[in-house]
Amino acid sequence: MRYKDAGVDIDIANRLKKTIGRLARTSSTPQVVSDFSMFGSLFELKGLKNPVLVASCDGVGTKLTVARMMGKHDTVGMDIVNHCVNDILTLGAKPLFFLDYIAFSRPEPRVLEAVVKGMARACRQHSCPLVGGETAIMPGWFRHQDYDLVGFLLGAVERTRIIDPRRIRPGDVLIGIPSSGLHTNGFSLARKVLFGKAKLTVRSRVKGITRSLGLELLQPHRSYFSLVYPLISRIKAIAHITGGGFFDNIARLLPAEISCVIKKKSWRPKPIFKLIQELGKVPVDEMYHTFNMGIGMVLIVSPGRAETVLSRIRGARTIGKVVRGTFGVAVI
Amino acid sequence: MRYKDAGVDIDIANRLKKTIGRLARTSSTPQVVSDFSMFGSLFELKGLKNPVLVASCDGVGTKLTVARMMGKHDTVGMDIVNHCVNDILTLGAKPLFFLDYIAFSRPEPRVLEAVVKGMARACRQHSCPLVGGETAIMPGWFRHQDYDLVGFLLGAVERTRIIDPRRIRPGDVLIGIPSSGLHTNGFSLARKVLFGKAKLTVRSRVKGITRSLGLELLQPHRSYFSLVYPLISRIKAIAHITGGGFFDNIARLLPAEISCVIKKKSWRPKPIFKLIQELGKVPVDEMYHTFNMGIGMVLIVSPGRAETVLSRIRGARTIGKVVRGTFGVAVI
Repeated sequence: MRYKDAGVDIDIANRLKKTIGRLARTSSTPQVVSDFSMFGSLFELKGLKNPVLVASCDGVGTKLTVARMMGKHDTVGMDIVNHCVNDILTLGAKPLFFLDYIAFSRPEPRVLEAVVKGMARACRQHSCPLVGGETAIMPGWFRHQDYDLVGFLLGAVERTRIIDPRRIRPGDVLIGIPSSGLHTNGFSLARKVLFGKAKLTVRSRVKGITRSLGLELLQPHRSYFSLVYPLISRIKAIAHITGGGFFDNIARLLPAEISCVIKKKSWRPKPIFKLIQELGKVPVDEMYHTFNMGIGMVLIVSPGRAETVLSRIRGARTIGKVVRGTFGVAVI
Repeated sequence: MRYKDAGVDIDIANRLKKTIGRLARTSSTPQVVSDFSMFGSLFELKGLKNPVLVASCDGVGTKLTVARMMGKHDTVGMDIVNHCVNDILTLGAKPLFFLDYIAFSRPEPRVLEAVVKGMARACRQHSCPLVGGETAIMPGWFRHQDYDLVGFLLGAVERTRIIDPRRIRPGDVLIGIPSSGLHTNGFSLARKVLFGKAKLTVRSRVKGITRSLGLELLQPHRSYFSLVYPLISRIKAIAHITGGGFFDNIARLLPAEISCVIKKKSWRPKPIFKLIQELGKVPVDEMYHTFNMGIGMVLIVSPGRAETVLSRIRGARTIGKVVRGTFGVAVI
């Protein structure tokens, strides 16, 4: 018996590694120390006086199922990079480099290539090289033809420039920036409602949505880096609206005795959210606890700075304010 | 319909996060900047003049299936940390911090707790805090009750102390250090042979092996850090014998026109490897291409340094030498 007979072909795995290497190198920067690259990835840290490293790890979740239904795998690659970039941005950090983990039940070179292409594209957009990762072949591991995709992003921020939410005060303003869709959260519920209960398909056309339902769901997770990073010094806190929606993601920023009120009338959620809400008869609170509802990032700024920030970010709008109180986050 | 009805319970997920946080904090160090810890993990980089960052990402593979068969999940947590530590050690780097990704079809608090306990223990042993990660709930994703476990390790090395295999010369000596078992590679083949073809179980007792077969397979991946790191300046190259066995892992270190010969008679593989080889009728070359065969790490040193290195590492032995040639790695 050979390893291949157990479902693992080292030669195919090595070929896959070459493909990944070729695509990954398109995102390289001079900081990548490539001569040595062996069991680990080497990266030279330069230009920061008191660097604090910021790390983030995340997955794409069951958005991967929609990618599979559509046979389209580049956008989930962009999703995972942008998701991680937004996460570290909330602390004021900029990306340094990215690693990925992809696991298959059996090797699928075309899927892998599409995923890595998407990651490399998003990495290039952030001058953040894709420096390494792992491709795992785990025979019989996943149901159907699923695979898993995980990203690790390392970033850095000057010690003195870390965003510190403890400066939040009553009267501060909440500014919301539009999302590009569901991003990468709430897909188990969305799929259950749309494809299960309502029996729609990825090809379905729905009123108010210009794309097929599948393409709408696959819209890449938007990166807020280029919009928000230049304004970092004017911002007191940033929430990336991911799993847990408005409640969990904003609540964890709030100091003791500080709460905030979000007025949901201050923006109009994209039609995809209304569709899920109506078809699934999902309670309103549950929607705001699960999805980003059209606002992917929330900035908290002092009233004096709100005007500048609003004018510099297209689509940004005031969605609420900080108040005294212990209730946490209220969406009214 | 609520998110919970789709298999994702945010409240359970939040409780799991608290458990992880409690266990992870046992591995914390003063470099972890905890006041801010929000969407990312903050770590202060200190004490290095020209730090080069070294990153590694890996999974445990289908060793997880054996953990499930045994209902024992702490050792895979140790495995993933130690695997990554060994990977960056090959470049001369020491660990800074660790992040994990764990994905379940449905939350399993007891399994998660055991895994995180194992990770935190291995992290403490390396003064390498577990600073964050992601726990994903992906309903219906995995076959059976499988889960996936991925680790991301960041380390650092002084620019001038990176191990540079380009210094390897004919006449250099290969020194092998014993492994603790299969480590985390070749499990798909091992399981197919032992549990499939030979119909053994995790409870089986086998001649020459003091533990049950399941416990023998679950032996934690050994960390070579404390043994090898103090000797780094005397070593020209290090191979961590993982997927691809002796061939791929040593070959990638060799400069052009340089090859090496490994004498397999120079050590006796642990009985578990003989068992797999015999029961599976696995060709000898395939064994050395898939498993570590009892040697988990190979050091390449100049002949003048071999004696010192051998005397400082218990169980280390000369297993081969570097020669002129283009054949790569020969196991004879």
